[in-house]
Amino acid sequence: MAKESRLPRQEDDFPAWYQEVVKQSGMAEHGMARGSQIIKPHGYAVWENIQRALDDRFKATGHENLMFPLLFPMSLLEKEAEHVEGFAPELAVVTIGGGEVLEEPLVIRPTSEAVIWTTYGNWVQSYRDLPLLYNQWCNVLRWEKRTRLFLRTSEFWWQEGHTAHSTKEEAWEETVRMLEIYREVAEDVLAIPVLAGRKSAAQRFPGADETLPIEGLMRDRKALQCGTSHFLGQNFSKAYDVQFLNADGEQEYAWGTSWGFSTRMIGGTIMAHGDDRGLRLPPAVAPVQVVVVPIYRTDDEQGSVLAAAGKVRDALAGAGVKVRVDDRDQYRPGFKFSEWELKGVPIRIEIGPRDLAADQVTLADRITGTKEQMPIEDTISGMRERLAASQSALFADAQSFLDAHTHEVADFDALKEGVEAEGGFWAGPWCGDTACEEQVTAETKASIRVLPLEREDPGGVCVVCGKAGVERATWAKAY
Amino acid sequence: MAKESRLPRQEDDFPAWYQEVVKQSGMAEHGMARGSQIIKPHGYAVWENIQRALDDRFKATGHENLMFPLLFPMSLLEKEAEHVEGFAPELAVVTIGGGEVLEEPLVIRPTSEAVIWTTYGNWVQSYRDLPLLYNQWCNVLRWEKRTRLFLRTSEFWWQEGHTAHSTKEEAWEETVRMLEIYREVAEDVLAIPVLAGRKSAAQRFPGADETLPIEGLMRDRKALQCGTSHFLGQNFSKAYDVQFLNADGEQEYAWGTSWGFSTRMIGGTIMAHGDDRGLRLPPAVAPVQVVVVPIYRTDDEQGSVLAAAGKVRDALAGAGVKVRVDDRDQYRPGFKFSEWELKGVPIRIEIGPRDLAADQVTLADRITGTKEQMPIEDTISGMRERLAASQSALFADAQSFLDAHTHEVADFDALKEGVEAEGGFWAGPWCGDTACEEQVTAETKASIRVLPLEREDPGGVCVVCGKAGVERATWAKAY
Repeated sequence: MAKESRLPRQEDDFPAWYQEVVKQSGMAEHGMARGSQIIKPHGYAVWENIQRALDDRFKATGHENLMFPLLFPMSLLEKEAEHVEGFAPELAVVTIGGGEVLEEPLVIRPTSEAVIWTTYGNWVQSYRDLPLLYNQWCNVLRWEKRTRLFLRTSEFWWQEGHTAHSTKEEAWEETVRMLEIYREVAEDVLAIPVLAGRKSAAQRFPGADETLPIEGLMRDRKALQCGTSHFLGQNFSKAYDVQFLNADGEQEYAWGTSWGFSTRMIGGTIMAHGDDRGLRLPPAVAPVQVVVVPIYRTDDEQGSVLAAAGKVRDALAGAGVKVRVDDRDQYRPGFKFSEWELKGVPIRIEIGPRDLAADQVTLADRITGTKEQMPIEDTISGMRERLAASQSALFADAQSFLDAHTHEVADFDALKEGVEAEGGFWAGPWCGDTACEEQVTAETKASIRVLPLEREDPGGVCVVCGKAGVERATWAKAY
Repeated sequence: MAKESRLPRQEDDFPAWYQEVVKQSGMAEHGMARGSQIIKPHGYAVWENIQRALDDRFKATGHENLMFPLLFPMSLLEKEAEHVEGFAPELAVVTIGGGEVLEEPLVIRPTSEAVIWTTYGNWVQSYRDLPLLYNQWCNVLRWEKRTRLFLRTSEFWWQEGHTAHSTKEEAWEETVRMLEIYREVAEDVLAIPVLAGRKSAAQRFPGADETLPIEGLMRDRKALQCGTSHFLGQNFSKAYDVQFLNADGEQEYAWGTSWGFSTRMIGGTIMAHGDDRGLRLPPAVAPVQVVVVPIYRTDDEQGSVLAAAGKVRDALAGAGVKVRVDDRDQYRPGFKFSEWELKGVPIRIEIGPRDLAADQVTLADRITGTKEQMPIEDTISGMRERLAASQSALFADAQSFLDAHTHEVADFDALKEGVEAEGGFWAGPWCGDTACEEQVTAETKASIRVLPLEREDPGGVCVVCGKAGVERATWAKAY
């Protein structure tokens, strides 16, 4: 942290900006093993706040946490055909344990449907045992050669919910309920407006009947899948034989869902809000919401200014604000300003001798960019409201950006040109045919990010083939 | 849960009692891969409460969380000689990733000193970068053939703190501070009285200069190591080259600590407090603190009793109590009583029509074994105090048990006989010689569990060899 930050400009090279801002802000770095990452304290604290926001909502909707093993026999994965096909190429395999070659290799979970549905078979006998509403917070591993911190690494951290139900309707309601929780956390906590809906058949989770994503737009106008909730139908209950006796005494297969939200969203938060000076963290997840920077020249000034800074800190902490005084003597105030801007702290309070004489402080808002002088008392009493206002301003900013980069399109040339020249979301009628979907991706690198949750007439012909449109697809280049 | 529980008696077969109580209470079960376990919701909720208790204390003492990778190259481990010798036999090794044989195999972390000290080498330049006060909550893996749920499994979950300091004194203070936090959580949260002190040289963590344990006594009079805080000296900073420039401009090696507390302590809580009817969970970590069981015969009674039960629940929940109404219609009250006793819920409230008419409930305390009738209003207003009293009663019970099974001993015959016949802790003078330590273990299976933190004259000769005693050792058979 001793060096002045020098970030590439987003406009010049967004990937370089991202790489540098992640590193310089102390969010994460690469690990020793290929594809691995170290989440550093400033990044991990954001994750802890995301975890709290999600976990509270999971529990409020009747879910409990548990923990399944990291390792399971490869053969378990093979019972669901699409599932193994999707994940087999990405597996890390343990072949040696305790100094001996294992009879059957164990895989590190890439996701836990296989081990969990195997176990649910033992837990479910009767309709009275249902629903099972369980979630786990854990690491998973999917082998990657090209790594981008938070966005694409072999190991990542997430929650994976796995539920089993006695009826299709109940399982579908659960799938939609969890999508809504993801939307709420993305928008209300991370200040990232999202499109919520369905994936096309080609983009579903391997083994799911429907995959419901939330999709956000990053500052480089590329989309990011921010969380997914899967309706599994009876695919896993049939593959892993999870049957129950219904109220009429008949055997039925259970209906399933699974849903996940990962550390990828730390990257999403960085890319949705950051600017050329660094991160802009939403107050709801910022590890430090307010930093107090004391300004002084003489020892006398130092004493009185630090005392005042300490009082402001204690008062704010007492009001539930996450606040820190930066009393490092070896750095100048200007250096500290830059560093906390880089780290995305929402509010900076400057206190110098002249402020003190006037019983005021200077307050700089990282999100709105405003800077003003305020009486100390008002600064303290109004801080929670101010943080809420900054949170709203950040969301409004991202919403304007999303709106400005979401377009309707009626023909393929316009779609191709738009995606290429402007990025962002491009929405238009689609015939539902995978061939048209693939053609767009082949020619533009854009994919269907989201379809409406309820299919409805798009009021036009397919932008690709000109046949009747069956629904409105939203296209974008994506991470 | 549909069957009546039938537990083996602790006195007849403690290991069988443990195995059955873990299973029947829904705490955990074995996973598919050898040595693996599934922590079920009732067990995981206890862990979440332990995590909160520890994490709050870590943060209050200036620590931050972060996350290092699960996998790292085998070669990293080899830099600290004792460390690799201690852990190499227990490793799980990934040799295949993404369908290809890896050039260098990766190990699943058995603990993270190797990867963390490698990284600290990049993070530390100057004394101003110190201390590093970091912790992670994660899974680790040490290959085991003989598995006992919670106590000994290949994969387990824990926190591991890793700190680096500029002086020996500061690192030692940290080691002791974390030991004290473990003691506090064991005693004040888990209601398990512990002996805190030092391990003998033979029982230190591989690579540590000192290992400070807390040791509890289980109901079968065997000891359980409940948490350890290690003073690493400069062993890891030298092995991984973590040097800093001190205030005088000289290069020095950093001083280290590490400390861990694991899901093993869920097992410890079960074994320290359980009885022949099942678990007795400390209110501070019980997932359900109060269960309300409605008692009724007719539909009319059901309606009014359930309504009253709901009111009690809402009032208790409003007061911050974790409360559940067991309104399952397919089970009789007596069955529910047994089941919640088995699951260790501290307080049971019974509400029937006659109670209702008298505006009272029947309250049964799982910990003190008392049962009494109380006005509804008093039940609600006094519940938090009552839970605190039950927590204290549970600790007092365990403290009496510990006191009754802690003995002073002056000669080897008495030690052998006592350990064999009575179990418990046996304390007496020791000469400090590893040969004597090994002789005791060879002849009694007891080991030195703890030595005083500050070495002091034990006032007698070594119970084994009769030479001068240098300190007082406490022996026990242990898990």
